[in-house]
Formats: sequence, structure tokens, C-alpha cells
Amino acid sequence: MPQCSATEGGYSARELAEMLGAHLAGDEGRRVTGLAPLSTARSEDLSFVVHADRHAEALQASAAGVVLVPAGANLPLRPGRTLLEIEDVYLGYARVSQYLGAGHRACDPGIHSTATVDASAAIAPDAHVGVGAVISAGAVVGAGAVIGAHCCVGRGSQVGARSFLHPRVTLLDDVTVGERCILHSGCVIGADGFGFAPAGELGWEKIEQLGGVVIGAEVEIGANTTIDRGALHDTRIGTGVKIDNLVHVAHNVEIGDHTAIAGCVGIAGSARIGAHCAIGGGVGILGHLSIADHVTLHAMTLVTRSIERPGEYASGVPHQEARLWNRMLARLRRMAR
Amino acid sequence: MPQCSATEGGYSARELAEMLGAHLAGDEGRRVTGLAPLSTARSEDLSFVVHADRHAEALQASAAGVVLVPAGANLPLRPGRTLLEIEDVYLGYARVSQYLGAGHRACDPGIHSTATVDASAAIAPDAHVGVGAVISAGAVVGAGAVIGAHCCVGRGSQVGARSFLHPRVTLLDDVTVGERCILHSGCVIGADGFGFAPAGELGWEKIEQLGGVVIGAEVEIGANTTIDRGALHDTRIGTGVKIDNLVHVAHNVEIGDHTAIAGCVGIAGSARIGAHCAIGGGVGILGHLSIADHVTLHAMTLVTRSIERPGEYASGVPHQEARLWNRMLARLRRMAR
Amino acid sequence: MPQCSATEGGYSARELAEMLGAHLAGDEGRRVTGLAPLSTARSEDLSFVVHADRHAEALQASAAGVVLVPAGANLPLRPGRTLLEIEDVYLGYARVSQYLGAGHRACDPGIHSTATVDASAAIAPDAHVGVGAVISAGAVVGAGAVIGAHCCVGRGSQVGARSFLHPRVTLLDDVTVGERCILHSGCVIGADGFGFAPAGELGWEKIEQLGGVVIGAEVEIGANTTIDRGALHDTRIGTGVKIDNLVHVAHNVEIGDHTAIAGCVGIAGSARIGAHCAIGGGVGILGHLSIADHVTLHAMTLVTRSIERPGEYASGVPHQEARLWNRMLARLRRMAR
Repeated sequence: MPQCSATEGGYSARELAEMLGAHLAGDEGRRVTGLAPLSTARSEDLSFVVHADRHAEALQASAAGVVLVPAGANLPLRPGRTLLEIEDVYLGYARVSQYLGAGHRACDPGIHSTATVDASAAIAPDAHVGVGAVISAGAVVGAGAVIGAHCCVGRGSQVGARSFLHPRVTLLDDVTVGERCILHSGCVIGADGFGFAPAGELGWEKIEQLGGVVIGAEVEIGANTTIDRGALHDTRIGTGVKIDNLVHVAHNVEIGDHTAIAGCVGIAGSARIGAHCAIGGGVGILGHLSIADHVTLHAMTLVTRSIERPGEYASGVPHQEARLWNRMLARLRRMAR
Repeated sequence: MPQCSATEGGYSARELAEMLGAHLAGDEGRRVTGLAPLSTARSEDLSFVVHADRHAEALQASAAGVVLVPAGANLPLRPGRTLLEIEDVYLGYARVSQYLGAGHRACDPGIHSTATVDASAAIAPDAHVGVGAVISAGAVVGAGAVIGAHCCVGRGSQVGARSFLHPRVTLLDDVTVGERCILHSGCVIGADGFGFAPAGELGWEKIEQLGGVVIGAEVEIGANTTIDRGALHDTRIGTGVKIDNLVHVAHNVEIGDHTAIAGCVGIAGSARIGAHCAIGGGVGILGHLSIADHVTLHAMTLVTRSIERPGEYASGVPHQEARLWNRMLARLRRMAR
Repeated sequence: MPQCSATEGGYSARELAEMLGAHLAGDEGRRVTGLAPLSTARSEDLSFVVHADRHAEALQASAAGVVLVPAGANLPLRPGRTLLEIEDVYLGYARVSQYLGAGHRACDPGIHSTATVDASAAIAPDAHVGVGAVISAGAVVGAGAVIGAHCCVGRGSQVGARSFLHPRVTLLDDVTVGERCILHSGCVIGADGFGFAPAGELGWEKIEQLGGVVIGAEVEIGANTTIDRGALHDTRIGTGVKIDNLVHVAHNVEIGDHTAIAGCVGIAGSARIGAHCAIGGGVGILGHLSIADHVTLHAMTLVTRSIERPGEYASGVPHQEARLWNRMLARLRRMAR
């Protein structure tokens, strides 16, 4: 971390309109250095209105100098205000957040003197290897990649170009991370899958986990999430997959491109998740089943068998007053007898 | 860790009575060096009786030299036994545990030779910075604070006076920790919130997370818990909040003072939790909702909408024999058709 | 990690037959260097057939040079194929995976120059202490044990002979790990239990956690799992227990020998789990209760009271289409009124 420095830029309304493909109304020279909600924005901030009808009043009251608004909403221009009209305001907001904020991941190239890098590892000249990081034999760190403080990169593991490992990420051996990925602190990629053969009264015999993990490009993996190595094949995470914090992905799992997984999800071994799925927080998915593309799972759903059709699925129970809930449970128990 | 040394003290019954505001009966000079349950206590230990009626026999049989008992319980004194009568025995036990046990967090002041401290960071002279710790540009470590081995403190982050970071805690940039907090190993504070704008077949566009995290005084945060930074504002944790292990707190969440959160809880983005709440293990709380003060949530409850009144809420289903449970499920499914 | 080197061996079919106690049919000199499923195995690989009837065709088509098959299945031998007949194929597969794959945990003995080892710690001469590891006062590392990069071993903690700590494991003070254990990256053993006495409007008074953690032999602990120290006694994990990733074991818990616990399980304080139990993913177990030996808990079950008889228990709700599920919930609510 010490060698990284935030680069804080700023843009004119004109520049932003061009970058976003937005239509500009008002002062095109107005400078934007920050992003804020309507209620707290200052004149040098850009803000945004997703629902023109709901937020017209807040827009009126806001001090924001530049505001992203939905094309065709015909929101009134007032003095000192520049509007940028765009089809998808939320997507525009995401892009502006990147223009203004991605600099906080900028790092100077070079290997910190406290890092331990094996002689057989290949580190791109413009990569950054942080304080105390460990790069093992045969590992590869691509162009412009950042290996944060105290990260461990195992034997034969690869970090793709411009990927960013925050401090204290662990890649065990034979883990491949694609380009432009972001891995958050504490995540562990490539620990042994949970594989044991029952040996009766003797307990459990370990099955060595001989596969690796392959992660596509533009994947983001949350803090303290774990993705286990495969038993015989690789565990595979598709392109553009986004995984939140404290998610458990077991061995041999395959996750399709652009699927998003919220926090505290557990996915058991050999499950195959489709592409463009949206998996809510706290969901549990049993092993050895398949989920189709474009499936949405509501929070705390338990998936017990394959899902073959796109759509929304659920089994989470909404909270009740405890007294009412106990009555519902008692009724259910009586019925079953 | 190597520079920390446990300070093991001892107190006379008289001293403890004064510290606790307890009424003493018996030998006031008796020395206490340890804490133990009635069944295993030795004569130099203090033990305690919360329910006088239930534990009278165990008290009789115990070798404990000093025992905390409820005021007014009229428990019999026997030779070699000192009783300390107090209104709230459990609270008294907590305080004695601190007198006897807090020394295990004592550390010598100073910065370990293997730590990497940026020249622009401000470390109090009596703070401790452990083996391999990383203190980034502009960070502040307050008086008597302890930064354990391999901790990372990000740019502009602040650790309040007398706060204690166990080994391997990560604070990303712009995280403020109040005074007298305890952060356990592996917790990650200030990783990016899970924010993406949908971009159709292209997947997800990252929304840079430009807020920070602000944590009040006397907060305790469990091992491997994660608290994400806000998108535009700060994520806020109130004074005296206690959070157990493996809890996920998403971006923009606000948690009121003195709320306690058990293990494995997930709280989604922009949820606002009240003060003095008690949140059971494995609870899931959806985003963009509010929970009033003094709400109790039973284990594994799913909160799907705002809770406006104090009280107890639940939706966790108690276990059944699997055969009976399957029958209940089948019945429920038939009913719904 | 840099000092560890994979040892890749190979065996003849004859050697494997002897090691497994299997009956050999075919070429006993055939060499095996890898393990693979029937579909991808090459001639130098060993593969296996658990269900002779289901996989006869795949066996026929496979290029595997040696195949483990169930004794008495009378599967046809073909040229270039060696069969090893054995009672329990899956157990045999586990053992072969160990013969071929355990080498990836081989490490050269010695203490890395970047490690920080307290003068009062006792490190066996043939133990390995990795990059940046911290070994505190009074700690003991047994014969042939491996302490991975950036691990922290607290004061007075002990790591048994031939145990393996992957990079970035944290043992706090007074943690005892038995022989031949495997601890995966990011796990935290011995953090404070979540113990507080209510102090009314003042919030919570910390109860110092004065016990330790005792872990038996041949235990495996998953990535980012947490096992807390006891309040007054030790938290105890029996021999041969296997724990997956992101599991939370609270203070004072006792887990019987050879119990297996899948990912994302939470076990509350002072729960006593029997021996030879199988606990499914996402299960929650309340505190201060007992579970008998040989209990199986299905995924996402909530255990709310003691279980006295062996058997299978459940309360997880299988997913439904969201529309159908909402109808079921509405029906249930109506019934309860």
C-alpha cells in the first residue's frame, strides 16, 4: 500500500458528455471533481437522477453543478446547472464513478524490497508487488498487475494483466486469474476442496485435490470469499462474474459468464451455475446439480435440485413477529401428523 | 505478537469487593488469581452463582475461595470461603474477567523493525506496531493503540486511542476506527461494496466505491468479518456495537449504538439497523430497509421489509426428523395448489 | 511457499495393488503417474469405477491404463488395460490420490530468513517455517510440521508433528493443534469468543475469554473458518474432525471425533456435537445444547434444541418458482390467523 498513490482527476462537463455519449445542456466548461447524491452534492460534484418524476424536487434543491438525467425527461435547466441527458443514467453513473474513482487503485510499478519473489517467477516490469508479498516458483504476474501487501501467489499461479489483488489475498498453487480482475482482501483461491472418502469407524480418508482454479477476465471476488481447487478437474469461474464477500465456492464448481453472487452464498461441490444468473445473499446450492442461464435466486433460497428454466426461484421465509411465527409453525406441525 | 507479554495479576477479596461495589462476607484477605466455574475452581479462584436456587449444591461442593453471589440470596458462608454479594452477578463476572484477563492484550510500545510505516503516517509514541505490519500514507495510530502482526492500515485510515488490532486485520483506505475498539484477526474493513450497474449482455459495470467506513468507540469486530466501504457516503457502525465472526456488512449500512450481531449474519446494502438491537446467528437482512431500536431477531431469520416496532421477530424453522419434515413440506405444497 | 517443492512420483500397477490390497488383472508393470476420471484419463493415468453397471460403457471408451473397479463386478479386461479389484473403490481412490498427490505439501526443513521466531519458542529441526511467519513466545512447532508463509502462531501455542499450516493461518495464544492436521489459509483459531454481559443503556461489558482451543490429531480446517477460544474452559475439536470453509465455531463448543462439517455452518457457544456426525452446508446450531453421535443434518437446517437420537434431521426448504413460493407463504399466513 505505501507505494500506491491516489490520482484524483477532474473533467469538464463537455469531456464527460463525450465519454458517456450524453447530450449536454448548459455550461459545457463546468468542472467536475466529485460524485455525490443530490442531497449532499456541491457545485463541483456530479449527481444523478434515475427516476425523473420522483426526484424532481430534490434536483431543484441540489447544489450539484452537473447532473446526469434520463433522456427525454425534460427536466428544467437552471442557472449554474449543467444537465447530461443519457439513456441509462445508472450505467452512466457507474462509468463516471470509474473516471473519477479508479485512480485509488493506481500503483507505482516495481517490487517492494520486503517482497519475496522466487527466481523462477516472471513479473512484468510495470507490475507492482507490495510489501511482504510472496511470489512462488513458476508464478506469472502480468503487465500492470498489482499484487498488494502480504499477498501470496502460489507455485505456477498466474495473475493476468492489469488485475488488482488488494492486500492479503492468497492464491494457492495452480490458480489462474484472468485480466482486469479485482480480488479483495482475505479471499483465498485454490485451497483444497472438501473431499474425503468414508472409512467407517476410522473416520475419513483425505482425497487429495489435484485440480486447480481458472478464473476468467474482469471477475471481481469479495473480501474473505473462498474458491476451492478442483479434485481432478479445475474449478472454473467465467468471464465477468462478480462475487461478493464471504461466499464459499466448493471444488469442481463451474460458474457461467457474468453471473453475480451476493454475500454469504454457499455453493457445494460440482454444481454448475449458468451465465447471467443473479444469486441473492445467503443462498445455498447443493452439489452435483445444474442451474440454467438467466436464473434469479432470491435471498436465502436453498437449491436442492437442478433448475432447467430461466426465471425467479425462492424459498426464503420472510420474518414475522415471533409469536405469530411460532403459531404458524405449530399449525404446520399439526397438519403433518 | 512476540513483543506482547501477558500481565497476570491477582487481587484480594477486599480489593475486588471495592472494585465491584459488592458486599463482602468472610475472609477479606483471600487472594484471587483466576476465574473458573464452580466445578473446576481451586481455592485461589473466583467463581460465581447466577441462579442461587439452581446452584446451591454446586456451590457447596466447590473449592472456589471467593464466589460472586446474588445480593439477598442468603447463601450460607462456610469456612475458607468468601462471598461477594452483588446485584448483577453476570455483570460482576464480566468485570472480574477484565481485571484478571485483560492483561493478555498488554503490549510494549514501539514499532517492530520489520514493520513498514509510511513517512507521512502519525504513530503515537506509546502505540505498538507489530511484526510486518504496514501503515500507509497519512494513516494515524492513536495513543496506546496496538497494531498486531501483519495488519495493514490503509491510506488516511485512523485507529483510535487504546484500540487493539489482533494479527492480520486489514483496514483499507479511509477507514476510521474509534477508541478502545477490538478487531479480531482476519477482519477486513473498507473493501469495495458490491456495486455494479447492469449493462445487458456485456454484464456488469463497476460502480467505484468512493465512501469510507466510520466505526465508533468500544466496538468489537469478530474474526474474518467484513465491513464494506460506502458507495458515496460512509458505512457507519455506532458506539459499543459488538459484531461476531464471519459477519458481512455491506456498503452504506448504518448500525445504531450498542447493537449486538451474532456470527454468520449478512446485512445487505443501505440497510439501517437501530440501536440496542440483538441479531441472532445466521440472520439475513435485505437492503434499503430500516429496523427500529430494541429489535431482537431470532437465529436464521430473513428480514425482507422494514421493522418499525421494537420486539422479537423470527422466521427460522426448527429442525425435525427428516422424514417428518419432508411430510410437512409435501403437505404445504399440496395446499398451495 | 518458495521453499516447498512438489514431489511427483509414479507407481507400477503391481505397487499400487500391494499398497491398496487389491487384486490385479492385466499388465502388472504398467506405470501410473496421474489420476483422472474415465472421460479424460490418458494411458498413464489411473481412473476408477464406483458403479460397475452405470459406467461400463465409459470404462470401455476410456484410455485409462489402470482402473480401480469393485471386487466381484466381473468387468471385462481389454488389451492395454490393467484392473485393480477392490472392495471399496472410493476409499481406494482416496488412497491413490494421497500416494500421487500428497507431495504437493512437501517442504524443505528450516526457518526462512524473513520469519520472526521468539527466542523461547521451540521449533523442531526438521520443521519448516515460511516467509514472514511469526512464532511467539513459548510456542512449540513439532517434528516435520510446516508453518506456511505469513502464519502467526501465538504465545504458548503448539503445532503437532507433521501438521501443515497453509499460508496465512492465524493461531492466537494458547491454541493446541494435534499431529497430522491440515489448516487452510485464512483460518483463525483462538480469537475471543463472543461473550458480553448486558449493562442496560451502557450496552455490553466484555467477558474476557480465558480458555484456549484444543484440536485433536488428523483434523482438517477449511479456508477462512474461525474457531473461538473458550470463556473459562477450552473449545475442543476431536480427533479426525473435518471442517470445511467459512465455518464459525463459537466458544466452549465441543465436537466429537470424526465429525464432518460442510461449508458456511455456524455453531453457537457451548454446543456439544457428537462423534461421527455429518453436518450439511449452511446449518445453524444454537448454543448450550447437545447433539448425539451419528446425527446427520441436512443443508441449512436450524437446530434449536438437543438431539438425543442418531438419525437424519432437516428444516431447509427446497426452492420453488418464486410465484408458487409466495402463494405457499400466503396460504401459511392465512392458516395461522
